[in-house]
Amino acid sequence: MPFSYTGKILHVNLSSGDIAVEEPDDLFYRRYLGGKGFAGYYLLKMLRPGVDPLGPDNVLVFAPGLLCGTPGPGLNRFTVAAKSPLSGAYGEAEAGGWWGPELKFAGCDAIVIKGRAPQPVYLWIEDGRAEVRDARHLWGLTTGEAQAAIRQELGEGPRKVRIAQIGPAGENRVRFACVVSELRYFNGRGGLGAVMGSKNLKAVAVRGRQEPALADPAAVLEIVRWHAKEFKNDPRGAALHAAGTPGLVAGLNAAGLLPTRNFQSGAFADAAALSYDAYQALLSGTNTCHACPVRCKREVSVTGDYAASPLYGGPEYETIAALGSNCGIGDLRAVAAANELCARYTLDSISTGGAIAWAMECFERGLLTRDDVGGLDLRFGNAEAMLQLVTMIAHRQGIGDLLAEGVQRAAARIGRGAEALAMHVKGQELPLHEPRGKFGVGLGYAVSETGADHLKMVHDTVFQTKESASLLSAAPLGIWEPLDAQDASSRKVRLYRLLENGPALWNCLGACFFVYAPRGFFPLERVPELVQAITSWRTSLGELWQGAERAINLARVFNVREGFGRADDTLPPRLFEPLEGGRLQGASLSHDEFEAALTLLYRMKGWDPATAAPTPAKLAELDIEWAAEEM
Amino acid sequence: MPFSYTGKILHVNLSSGDIAVEEPDDLFYRRYLGGKGFAGYYLLKMLRPGVDPLGPDNVLVFAPGLLCGTPGPGLNRFTVAAKSPLSGAYGEAEAGGWWGPELKFAGCDAIVIKGRAPQPVYLWIEDGRAEVRDARHLWGLTTGEAQAAIRQELGEGPRKVRIAQIGPAGENRVRFACVVSELRYFNGRGGLGAVMGSKNLKAVAVRGRQEPALADPAAVLEIVRWHAKEFKNDPRGAALHAAGTPGLVAGLNAAGLLPTRNFQSGAFADAAALSYDAYQALLSGTNTCHACPVRCKREVSVTGDYAASPLYGGPEYETIAALGSNCGIGDLRAVAAANELCARYTLDSISTGGAIAWAMECFERGLLTRDDVGGLDLRFGNAEAMLQLVTMIAHRQGIGDLLAEGVQRAAARIGRGAEALAMHVKGQELPLHEPRGKFGVGLGYAVSETGADHLKMVHDTVFQTKESASLLSAAPLGIWEPLDAQDASSRKVRLYRLLENGPALWNCLGACFFVYAPRGFFPLERVPELVQAITSWRTSLGELWQGAERAINLARVFNVREGFGRADDTLPPRLFEPLEGGRLQGASLSHDEFEAALTLLYRMKGWDPATAAPTPAKLAELDIEWAAEEM
Repeated sequence: MPFSYTGKILHVNLSSGDIAVEEPDDLFYRRYLGGKGFAGYYLLKMLRPGVDPLGPDNVLVFAPGLLCGTPGPGLNRFTVAAKSPLSGAYGEAEAGGWWGPELKFAGCDAIVIKGRAPQPVYLWIEDGRAEVRDARHLWGLTTGEAQAAIRQELGEGPRKVRIAQIGPAGENRVRFACVVSELRYFNGRGGLGAVMGSKNLKAVAVRGRQEPALADPAAVLEIVRWHAKEFKNDPRGAALHAAGTPGLVAGLNAAGLLPTRNFQSGAFADAAALSYDAYQALLSGTNTCHACPVRCKREVSVTGDYAASPLYGGPEYETIAALGSNCGIGDLRAVAAANELCARYTLDSISTGGAIAWAMECFERGLLTRDDVGGLDLRFGNAEAMLQLVTMIAHRQGIGDLLAEGVQRAAARIGRGAEALAMHVKGQELPLHEPRGKFGVGLGYAVSETGADHLKMVHDTVFQTKESASLLSAAPLGIWEPLDAQDASSRKVRLYRLLENGPALWNCLGACFFVYAPRGFFPLERVPELVQAITSWRTSLGELWQGAERAINLARVFNVREGFGRADDTLPPRLFEPLEGGRLQGASLSHDEFEAALTLLYRMKGWDPATAAPTPAKLAELDIEWAAEEM
Repeated sequence: MPFSYTGKILHVNLSSGDIAVEEPDDLFYRRYLGGKGFAGYYLLKMLRPGVDPLGPDNVLVFAPGLLCGTPGPGLNRFTVAAKSPLSGAYGEAEAGGWWGPELKFAGCDAIVIKGRAPQPVYLWIEDGRAEVRDARHLWGLTTGEAQAAIRQELGEGPRKVRIAQIGPAGENRVRFACVVSELRYFNGRGGLGAVMGSKNLKAVAVRGRQEPALADPAAVLEIVRWHAKEFKNDPRGAALHAAGTPGLVAGLNAAGLLPTRNFQSGAFADAAALSYDAYQALLSGTNTCHACPVRCKREVSVTGDYAASPLYGGPEYETIAALGSNCGIGDLRAVAAANELCARYTLDSISTGGAIAWAMECFERGLLTRDDVGGLDLRFGNAEAMLQLVTMIAHRQGIGDLLAEGVQRAAARIGRGAEALAMHVKGQELPLHEPRGKFGVGLGYAVSETGADHLKMVHDTVFQTKESASLLSAAPLGIWEPLDAQDASSRKVRLYRLLENGPALWNCLGACFFVYAPRGFFPLERVPELVQAITSWRTSLGELWQGAERAINLARVFNVREGFGRADDTLPPRLFEPLEGGRLQGASLSHDEFEAALTLLYRMKGWDPATAAPTPAKLAELDIEWAAEEM
């Protein structure tokens, strides 16, 4: 078969320094695909249950998706995975950019890392060779500094060596430290940066010069050209190109769906100051990921009190809402500065914003005093305080040390009702989408193996009108009729069930969610054709969808093995209380509806509604019967 | 949308003579497709549970598949359905040929018939107009005679008016009377001819002049041409074209899989006399169905003692094995003559052969005496007696009246162990495939809603080698590895589960099983493209597969409502006893393995293993929650 998924999985033992190469057969790729599928496989096979996520026995996986690095549209994403120090569950975060493709160009389909280096190291992978290198001189550097230093010592010009790395937050094992590549593409969620830190692994630098061979290059080219032509005027693509994710702020606020002041409200009075109109004043350029027709990425340049360099890109929607509206801050310059700090320190901006918003509410309600917080005036809206907290968290200074544990642990520590204010699922802070206005978001947050996760939910607002482009795009899944975003009936559960494998599939393929239907605009019905042109496999959307379901089930088995059950598939209590203000004033979830939907969803998924565990029959259907023995 | 599924469902009340037209919306077609999907829908909606299958309250559906009559390869099949007088369960039988396309050309997507005409009638449908006509003068005629008479009185030359009809066996309500069109295409199983007889409906004659409009005629043409070119050398198609289904005899016998003497053995000493070499001596021509690249149909011409006219086609594999080897008869001329008798009387040759084979074994074992059978020497191998019995069954004469009830009822009538010799599931006689050598065949027979049915099983012999073309064709379903045909493990259950929607989908689409992968050679991965070119729907194999699963579940709900449960999903006891002779000498099914496989299959299908009923969650997932209320 001409397609080269290059056929090499790198196994690195940091304790011993050993590096080994595994060359799986074609069927391994077909069954587990890549990305999330590989992560689930290796975490289940190589991790013992109950290990300390920040100890040497955790396993850290870097896995581009199957098609990552090919010229197909938006095929650039890779997954980092480990047992999460934030949730104690399956931890995974994906990012686009250039690092994943570079790893493929270097002849490597995934890296599986175990053990702990005796002293700081980084990994250097170049065209099929791998090396563990001393990083003592890099330890403590922020990401910009470290990137420059590594590039210099590897003797390559800028933009040649791609570096995924951690800054001080990862070194300090902040439980929501992220991994960043090219200083601006974040494997954000779940604290995987802390896992790198705990392994004394500062960075993974890669350089590859061999693009993956394609089974049918002419067919790939035809699809790419057809797509570029056919869809250049798709309004969804055009909107995303024109304003990126920051373009979402105004519309969400108008709909009452912009999380504000720790999810107390869905409308923010100063939303205009966070909108794309305001963003444009800071804009210094746009950017893109490998092979992307959308080019949604932005760079900002801010000088003055709140400085931000375009080197670190610019804040995305999640960051704007997390560190802006959700902290009551209507100042995009402050958000941009915080975004850069998160990138320099490697802090997940969603969890960082969630922790600060929680602290602010605790402060306003008297659960944290001025003394507790080092004298800061921690009321909502204090941008200065927010920025100070970002740095304090990264360095675990003062109250930052508590917040670096995440809201679940921090709330448990201070007690007195603070738990009720902690907006998380399985310990992971909520992304900035409001389940009280989108039932599929709530379901997704609850059942996600990683805890609340904006890449594991259904944006059901885009399926609620008959004319919706996303609804039309979803027809090949058997979704033919609009459904209100707040609908919580069995039909919504069906919608969720039919859609949920989508994000998991895009992850496994290394495909960006913004490019692929039903949310994006590369049509679902041509995905098998694209996969076939690249890999030579005769495939179908059904086979691929089942591959994604397999990956989801592997992650779920991991969680069951770690002791997670149905009670963990839940939502914070606030979501069952009425929203304050905005267009959805008074909206709340119903416990009965939510539990009924959950039960039905488990049944549809072939999971036991009592334990939330996959049934042996489901695992057999997915051809991963071996995973049943892990539970 | 340009595609005309012509959009008209004809409702005929034979009691009142009323004819009404229903024009369902696009979504109805998308959800229920056609064929089996329509049948399940109307039988559930229009039939009360517990009605007498031979009373006026039974509902009879004629439903071409969604794509029937278009130029796509092998798109020519239609379903006839009703509550079966043979099984008391969901009854359905499909046929190819020309009648289904003609009904579409006449502007009609299905006919739903209820009530009972006060006197014999036939239905005449011509270009959107329908008429109930007197058939008193046709009653009692054999099919050849009736066809000639109807064509003459409708003033059309031969081959213009297409006629689906019954002969004396249907009129006499033989419980396995079939429906025949063009004298040679059989909706064979389940006694639907008896339902026509019970309604005093002799025939449905149709003439249409308007081919269905295609959404994208150029794309359809391109696919048809591509397919003709790409696959003209496919060995599967070539073999089927060269010898039709009669070509199977020799190979099955060599493999020990040719049912012989009422399934006592899998090898027949006189198999050579039934093989295609022998067949060729009788061959007078070949024939085809609408738009088929395979052209597998055969015509025989026999003179002398055992006469057979090419007007009635020629025996297929099932008929050769049913009335040949399974009756111990090694004389293809006698089989050809019996085939013609079945076509003239409208007897299902599989059940007819099954009933005669059972009677022969009863005779040899002394459970039926010479007196019981009208003086016939009913030992295996007596061709003369076999032919006499065919006529006696059609006219319910002597022992024929008992056999006309099917082996289940007949065995219950005579008792004394005759039940153990009755090879049926849910009252329907076994097709001529040996579950002891093909586990997927056994599973299919057991769970089929219609009872044992050769269009509802998995031919797992074609998936057992790595090089098998069918295995490679099944890859888009997630079937990647060979599995022995006798394997009864969970992997076989998975294979079955992934494949079982296939035959149901071909039925719903009106597509022939011999043309479409994995058994045929039109690739699965291009089916959605073909459907889109014809209908304009953006679809996927997954959506279509789920449509088929929906149809299967509707049929299952029908059976649950009629009181069927897990105990009915069983196999005759003989299959758990060792085969005698041949290459599979000694092979038998294991009760434990079979029950374990059944339980696992139910779980994979989302059915309750205790009741074999679909769970409410499965019905909600299939978007047919309304069906749950029927159970």
